[in-house]
Amino acid sequence: MIERVAILGTGLLGTSVGLALRAAGYRGELTGWNRGAAGAQAALAMKAVDTLVSDPLEAARGSQVTVLAVPIYATLDLMEKLAGVLGPEQLLTDVGSTKRVIAETGMRLYNQPERAAFLPGHPMAGKERGGAELGDANLFRGAVWLFTDDPQAQRTAGAAELVKSWREWVTAMGSKTIDLGPARHDELVAWVSHLPQFVATALSALLEDEVGDAPELRDVGGRALREMTRLGASPFSMWRDIAHTNTEAVEAALLALEQRLAYLRENLRTPVLREEFEQANRFRREG
Amino acid sequence: MIERVAILGTGLLGTSVGLALRAAGYRGELTGWNRGAAGAQAALAMKAVDTLVSDPLEAARGSQVTVLAVPIYATLDLMEKLAGVLGPEQLLTDVGSTKRVIAETGMRLYNQPERAAFLPGHPMAGKERGGAELGDANLFRGAVWLFTDDPQAQRTAGAAELVKSWREWVTAMGSKTIDLGPARHDELVAWVSHLPQFVATALSALLEDEVGDAPELRDVGGRALREMTRLGASPFSMWRDIAHTNTEAVEAALLALEQRLAYLRENLRTPVLREEFEQANRFRREG
Repeated sequence: MIERVAILGTGLLGTSVGLALRAAGYRGELTGWNRGAAGAQAALAMKAVDTLVSDPLEAARGSQVTVLAVPIYATLDLMEKLAGVLGPEQLLTDVGSTKRVIAETGMRLYNQPERAAFLPGHPMAGKERGGAELGDANLFRGAVWLFTDDPQAQRTAGAAELVKSWREWVTAMGSKTIDLGPARHDELVAWVSHLPQFVATALSALLEDEVGDAPELRDVGGRALREMTRLGASPFSMWRDIAHTNTEAVEAALLALEQRLAYLRENLRTPVLREEFEQANRFRREG
Repeated sequence: MIERVAILGTGLLGTSVGLALRAAGYRGELTGWNRGAAGAQAALAMKAVDTLVSDPLEAARGSQVTVLAVPIYATLDLMEKLAGVLGPEQLLTDVGSTKRVIAETGMRLYNQPERAAFLPGHPMAGKERGGAELGDANLFRGAVWLFTDDPQAQRTAGAAELVKSWREWVTAMGSKTIDLGPARHDELVAWVSHLPQFVATALSALLEDEVGDAPELRDVGGRALREMTRLGASPFSMWRDIAHTNTEAVEAALLALEQRLAYLRENLRTPVLREEFEQANRFRREG
């Protein structure tokens, strides 16, 4: 049913979407656009897209489904620009890491009579470094792909079919879909995604101050330290937008962890330490 | 040169030492003792040891090198008991995660004329779960094995040879050895080993409170969350002794991280966030 897909932004996620669609059997067109020419050419060379265009609006205009795979503020910017370009038989979707602002914008500019459909999406997959070169057809395999669709959305029968079909392709790419509201989404990912990232950033920055000048001592930490700081390599360019569009939930999660660490610190020699380890063990009981 | 080794404690580390010695070509005797019979039998079944004895003192008495692979307080207890059993041509070494208290005890009870030699050691390797069944001949491959030997140690020529030979076996097991003082050791591992563990414990315990009742939401975090909480499965039984014998250094590291998290939280929307990400990126520049 879907035969023409545009991918706007051929970084890690956009390139992986193209590769995963092909691996899942998608035979239609794949048009790509990227702000930087190198990333676009890399995606083309990897066959994540068939053709490149220099204008994102042109790419979207000719497609049934347009996937926005750029940072959040760039997503919002393209949503504004595409509102005047896309029609009621077209679907726009995204992969942004926060959903409240994007879903609000989607209901304001899309999902109304005579307008295109917008489906807010968020695949919980990524790597600590970005770029088309790291694109991976299996990136979404076994991952959760969240949707925060709005029951008030108004769509033509054709657009509703595109939404249904896109969700089937997401499943075909190997992801498990979960639906929830955008506010609940942002609160949840603050805990399970944003908090782990900011902790890894703070831990890595602190350790760079403490032992960064002695590489042989960094090696001492072994696998445990490597894992706990791997996300320290994550780029600011992506996380700035997340910090700006989910500030309150991230603040609350960070404050809660600061308090938990203080509680643990004050109880290193009391029976509370056992309770904290046992509570942590419970979180990993199925891991 | 070393032909008779006793391993006291056939948990993950002790069993791995036996397996790694064999894999590295050690052909001598391997005698094992473990507090629990199941762990002892498992190590025997895995051929990590050739024979089991029910008395740790008996195992050590007949060996040239005795490896203590038990939690820290159990290590200190066995050091007391073995001081009256071992002679000046025998070597006792350990794998404990803190070294100040153990090294002090070693100089008080060993490393003097007419007494056995004691070499404080600490392989930076492990898993988040313990037990002989997880023993692994490759556990120490690529890891750092720290020694905090004391230049004031007095040893017979025979014991000095055993120390040299044991260090060669450690290298043969695939580890890189680093020598440092016990106080510096404890400060360093507070940053690169203990802090990451306690952070993972606090994060896991907090998330168990927040999303533990909704397993499908735990899955949302994906690989990043799994990595950041893997150490949450670590057993209290091991970490209690570390918290008790390195309290001040761990307190200082935890307090520093609490402050760093607060600094990041207060700057989610300021240019400081970029600086923190860039400092974190530097820590991972070679990772």
